[in-house]
Amino acid sequence: MLLIKNAKILTEKIVTGNILIEENKIIALGEVSDKSDIVIDAKGLAAIPGLFNAHTHAAMCLLRGYAEDMKLQDWLEKKIWPIEAKLDSEAVYWGTKLACIEMLKGGTTFFNDMYFFSPAVAKAASECGIRACISSAFFDFFNMDLLEENLKKVEREIKEIKSFKNIIPAIGPHAVYTVSLEGLRRSVEIAEKYNAIIHFHLAETEKEVVDFRKKTGKSIVKALDQIGFLNKRLIAAHSVWLEKEEIEILGKRNVSVAHCPASNMKLCVGKAIDFATMKNFGVNFCLGTDGAASNNSLDMFEEMKFAALLQKFYYNDPTRLKAEEVFKAATINAAKAFGVNAGEIASGKLADIVLIDLKKAQLNPDHSLIANLVYSANSGCVDTVIVDGKILVENGYFEGEEEIIERANEVAFRIVRD
Amino acid sequence: MLLIKNAKILTEKIVTGNILIEENKIIALGEVSDKSDIVIDAKGLAAIPGLFNAHTHAAMCLLRGYAEDMKLQDWLEKKIWPIEAKLDSEAVYWGTKLACIEMLKGGTTFFNDMYFFSPAVAKAASECGIRACISSAFFDFFNMDLLEENLKKVEREIKEIKSFKNIIPAIGPHAVYTVSLEGLRRSVEIAEKYNAIIHFHLAETEKEVVDFRKKTGKSIVKALDQIGFLNKRLIAAHSVWLEKEEIEILGKRNVSVAHCPASNMKLCVGKAIDFATMKNFGVNFCLGTDGAASNNSLDMFEEMKFAALLQKFYYNDPTRLKAEEVFKAATINAAKAFGVNAGEIASGKLADIVLIDLKKAQLNPDHSLIANLVYSANSGCVDTVIVDGKILVENGYFEGEEEIIERANEVAFRIVRD
Repeated sequence: MLLIKNAKILTEKIVTGNILIEENKIIALGEVSDKSDIVIDAKGLAAIPGLFNAHTHAAMCLLRGYAEDMKLQDWLEKKIWPIEAKLDSEAVYWGTKLACIEMLKGGTTFFNDMYFFSPAVAKAASECGIRACISSAFFDFFNMDLLEENLKKVEREIKEIKSFKNIIPAIGPHAVYTVSLEGLRRSVEIAEKYNAIIHFHLAETEKEVVDFRKKTGKSIVKALDQIGFLNKRLIAAHSVWLEKEEIEILGKRNVSVAHCPASNMKLCVGKAIDFATMKNFGVNFCLGTDGAASNNSLDMFEEMKFAALLQKFYYNDPTRLKAEEVFKAATINAAKAFGVNAGEIASGKLADIVLIDLKKAQLNPDHSLIANLVYSANSGCVDTVIVDGKILVENGYFEGEEEIIERANEVAFRIVRD
Repeated sequence: MLLIKNAKILTEKIVTGNILIEENKIIALGEVSDKSDIVIDAKGLAAIPGLFNAHTHAAMCLLRGYAEDMKLQDWLEKKIWPIEAKLDSEAVYWGTKLACIEMLKGGTTFFNDMYFFSPAVAKAASECGIRACISSAFFDFFNMDLLEENLKKVEREIKEIKSFKNIIPAIGPHAVYTVSLEGLRRSVEIAEKYNAIIHFHLAETEKEVVDFRKKTGKSIVKALDQIGFLNKRLIAAHSVWLEKEEIEILGKRNVSVAHCPASNMKLCVGKAIDFATMKNFGVNFCLGTDGAASNNSLDMFEEMKFAALLQKFYYNDPTRLKAEEVFKAATINAAKAFGVNAGEIASGKLADIVLIDLKKAQLNPDHSLIANLVYSANSGCVDTVIVDGKILVENGYFEGEEEIIERANEVAFRIVRD
């Protein structure tokens, strides 16, 4: 039993009280007894649900700050791709671990990843104790032989990913410009076979949308709908360049989107996701950081602020994407998308809890906890992080972080140098 | 003598070595002896110049999170103004102190303020040990009697502000929609008389620009130029809605602008400042957070990221406002604007130095220190802050911060409640 005492608890109403945890679940809230093996005195701390990072490429931390302020094609062709070609399983493992401790120390208790060497990603995440959805990503470049080969790899990897504790498997067909419609159709079959998530990049740039229409005469969403690709398993990252009718279809098919505002701004996608229309059509709206090479941090507090401010600015409406809405995007909406029994602090939910240090200057005065979390907090405000009932971060410290940082730095400099 | 040992020093080239400080100045860099009264072991820390917040309303911290996600007029008329009407000198004093510790703990060693009860602002800043430019702000609402009365108050306050150590006085004519051209002309006279800065809001919204043209038939900048308002003393906050010709004039007149990206986005000003044109015409480009009621934090690391990403996104060019350029905006450019002998780490400069904890996960790997500072760091990465040769923040802690937070909360809840 683990007892969190005297916390300011962010539930539907904000209450000050205790949280009792048994094994990996919250079993009581409020006036509960303090007979527990472990007691955390949370006076001066707020207890909030752990944050969900709904789209990232964790191991890209290795390339953080490696190439900046460049045109997209130059950046990819001259810098990112040549280095990624040198990645191996060990590099991805340490890069992912670095990302995991950055996320955990920043209050993120779940991440949705797409990258190479996915079993190494799953191993790293699982060892760090963070919850995650790990995709086995693939391209087929419209070559059916390559598709068959890659789907075999995907099935192999999904089985391996499934074996790790608290890791949800996903299939990751990259995008319509790298994967054939046949590849996407087959992805759905595989996802159903393994009860997996589908993790996909959708309509990130105008070029993607225009090129697809030139090639097929259709909008991406309509084409995907025709092959049955759109369903509740799908997490569509970015989803920027969509027409109203396409958003309506996403809503009808129970698709979740993962908005990545900082990355969209940094990579100049040219438009902001249309939150109001998505809300209107009931699209499940989630939030992600994207990879650290295009962000360059994995701080979901910062991402919430970017999301809210970008909506307001781009659509010239300060009432858009309110603090409560963006907080839900980073918690309960994503919990729903991935079928994780968390995202809020309530009895019966998984004990994925973050304690925020309310004594930080930037969180005072506390006229509104939710506004302070969204607009004023950052990763530096996190004191304690509990995932699956286990304390992983205490006083802002993750045990063993020094070694992870050191090893990740070694592989980062090795791949850049060699 | 104060010696910082084994720091990774951010100068033109990054060097690892020592920094020797005598009284309030850096007197040597590199291989210097360690015979000093105080020695800071800065292994694993980067030494960077303290950041300059070139536009804020510090005491508005009191209203942080008080009113969110509202239309601008509702927000001002129903929430902000009624509360501001209840402010007194004591409230401003504690609100400013709260802002000062937030800024200092976030690596900001200088701020440029405009608010009511300016002597209380100066007292608070001076007691916290931060460097600042404090304006005596005024409106005349185009009433010449009110102007005379307010200019008397301004002169009185400037004399008082000047008496505080490390505080630069300024006159703060609010904006063209609240101050007459005569009021602006007289501001220049007073600034010259007291060798003061002029702190002003310029072209923040389209409405301001359109209304002024309707009233006068002129562009704001041309009208200001005709009365001699544009000169090297002027810090023009926002400067968003300017034509190319106006920016050219600002450049010729050696005006400094203070860009506030997060506030501009949150308040929906509808456009992004045009950095490229400003760079072209040699306008001195600085950066500010604006007040916490419209940001809602005073974190210059976050502000640098917002600035860079907003430029790239809005102008669809990832090469705009590069990491080095935005870092200069937050340091050396502002130092120049305010005539402060700081903004870089070099022998002979004031000892305003921030030590950054390079062991933070989000600052690894360190492929580029400057990219990590701009795109990955936040206030939580600050370990030690030295202003004017004095250590004000150590291990992220400012002595006496608890009392400041407590007292600021008391006044914040008093003015909101009463």
